[in-house]
Amino acid sequence: MTDKTYVFGHTNPDTDSIASAISMANLQNQMGRNAESYRLGDINKETKYALDTFGVNEPEFLSKIDKQSNVIMVDNNEFSQSVTGIENAHIQMVVDHHRLNLHTAEPVYCISEPVGCASTILYKLYKQEDISITPRIAGMMLSAILSDTLMFRSPTCTQQDRVIAEKLSKIAGINLYDYGYKLLEAGTDTSDCSADEIIKLDSKDFKHHDLKITISQINTSTIDEIFKRKLEIEKAIESRIQNENIDLFIFAVTDILEANSKVIVLGNRTDIFKKAFHTELIANTTILNGVVSRKKQILPAIIEGLEQKIQLQ
Amino acid sequence: MTDKTYVFGHTNPDTDSIASAISMANLQNQMGRNAESYRLGDINKETKYALDTFGVNEPEFLSKIDKQSNVIMVDNNEFSQSVTGIENAHIQMVVDHHRLNLHTAEPVYCISEPVGCASTILYKLYKQEDISITPRIAGMMLSAILSDTLMFRSPTCTQQDRVIAEKLSKIAGINLYDYGYKLLEAGTDTSDCSADEIIKLDSKDFKHHDLKITISQINTSTIDEIFKRKLEIEKAIESRIQNENIDLFIFAVTDILEANSKVIVLGNRTDIFKKAFHTELIANTTILNGVVSRKKQILPAIIEGLEQKIQLQ
Repeated sequence: MTDKTYVFGHTNPDTDSIASAISMANLQNQMGRNAESYRLGDINKETKYALDTFGVNEPEFLSKIDKQSNVIMVDNNEFSQSVTGIENAHIQMVVDHHRLNLHTAEPVYCISEPVGCASTILYKLYKQEDISITPRIAGMMLSAILSDTLMFRSPTCTQQDRVIAEKLSKIAGINLYDYGYKLLEAGTDTSDCSADEIIKLDSKDFKHHDLKITISQINTSTIDEIFKRKLEIEKAIESRIQNENIDLFIFAVTDILEANSKVIVLGNRTDIFKKAFHTELIANTTILNGVVSRKKQILPAIIEGLEQKIQLQ
Repeated sequence: MTDKTYVFGHTNPDTDSIASAISMANLQNQMGRNAESYRLGDINKETKYALDTFGVNEPEFLSKIDKQSNVIMVDNNEFSQSVTGIENAHIQMVVDHHRLNLHTAEPVYCISEPVGCASTILYKLYKQEDISITPRIAGMMLSAILSDTLMFRSPTCTQQDRVIAEKLSKIAGINLYDYGYKLLEAGTDTSDCSADEIIKLDSKDFKHHDLKITISQINTSTIDEIFKRKLEIEKAIESRIQNENIDLFIFAVTDILEANSKVIVLGNRTDIFKKAFHTELIANTTILNGVVSRKKQILPAIIEGLEQKIQLQ
């Protein structure tokens, strides 16, 4: 057996990062290769619900990776969102659906597609390799698609995600919509989370030249419920900003039924946010109508705003 | 019809950059999309031989690209090796087999594989889309594989390249080895080239932080023939270094039969080269045994050397 390949998604793992790591490791195993899935952080409640439903064990936690270890990155291609030591690992493969921000010294196998979910691409890799998908793996991949596309309501969702989710629901033997509502509902329960936990649930860091930008997002069916804790959440954000030298922190509370987001924006560079969205902040807050996707809506607007500024200088 | 998509490889195009642009534009056309192949520089003699053999017109020259134009990048993913204006174009797709060095604001369709030739990946895309390959297109794709893999002798060559080249030679109705020798031979004729033309034939620029590194390569069956013109070539390199503020210029003359390279190394940072290859230069020159691939051997050694240095600082 060759050296083990470590398969993982991004830090602060969401359901897709866990499901695509599990299904990629399984695909490699089925092809006779030594691979294992890992998580780069705590499992959230939505993912736990999926794992429990389909009787799948949660992957082991990985805090750092040794030099020259073999790695497959799924649902992520940015070192800033990956494990400590990734810069010196040997990246065998990347399967992702986010913007590309990757440098390698040598050619690697990379497949990135603008679909709603990494698990959608994984499904096609199983088909390509002619390897059958078990009901458990299908259930995890389905959960990832439902989660990433907010049950097909996100602008990131494509026809491929819909068609493949239907197929996976049949393999998993589960009603897609019944299960989907329960899954998303499980993810919105923050009643026993501290404010710090809430802003860390699905938080991603981005670097743009010298700027450090954090965009944290939470899905909910009741925005007001989260905003009752606004002061407490703002304190937690301020503390993160201090400790991690963050220039701009955007916390988006996304109503998954109404498809809007209410945001709290803090840091010494809130001007970037205001310019990007042509909006003012009232008590650090504004509503972004129709905005539900960090990847397809919030981050591109911020980057476009930044690059225009750079051109003007 | 939608807006035209511009399809092109890298500047200083080699046979793969031209062939994969032609075959990708053709694939898009067969799928009912408006796409056209372009070249980002003069056609070299090897590529001309392939175009003439298979009766294919050379693509039009493209000097710059308008903002928001739709683009497919083949055989390249680095802006520094692409057309002027690429930063503001809309990249629809990337098909490549080089190291990854790409930043995008939004997710894009990118397929990169560590195979010997971009045309090898293109062949698989034709199969995936169930679109038949004409003898002319097959001939161009075959030429690209023979060229990039030095007739399967380069360490970049994989089993896939070999198998697909065989299939393409049957579609093209041509003897793979007979044609291959003639193709590579056509590319080594530099008798009527100026020294400046010789160093520009297959030259690629790389940026590493503030460093500008140029690696130019020429294939030959007689290294001595090129080195008869060493002084003249050194002058041409020095002039390029001055005009383009290059820190390190590596000119590799690769013997395609013996699988060695003799290099001329100039610039104020030749120390980088010497450290990377643990070698000294005698009269700006050394022999690299077994080194034939810029992508897989020369560039990774240089980058590894640089990154080690950065870590030590």
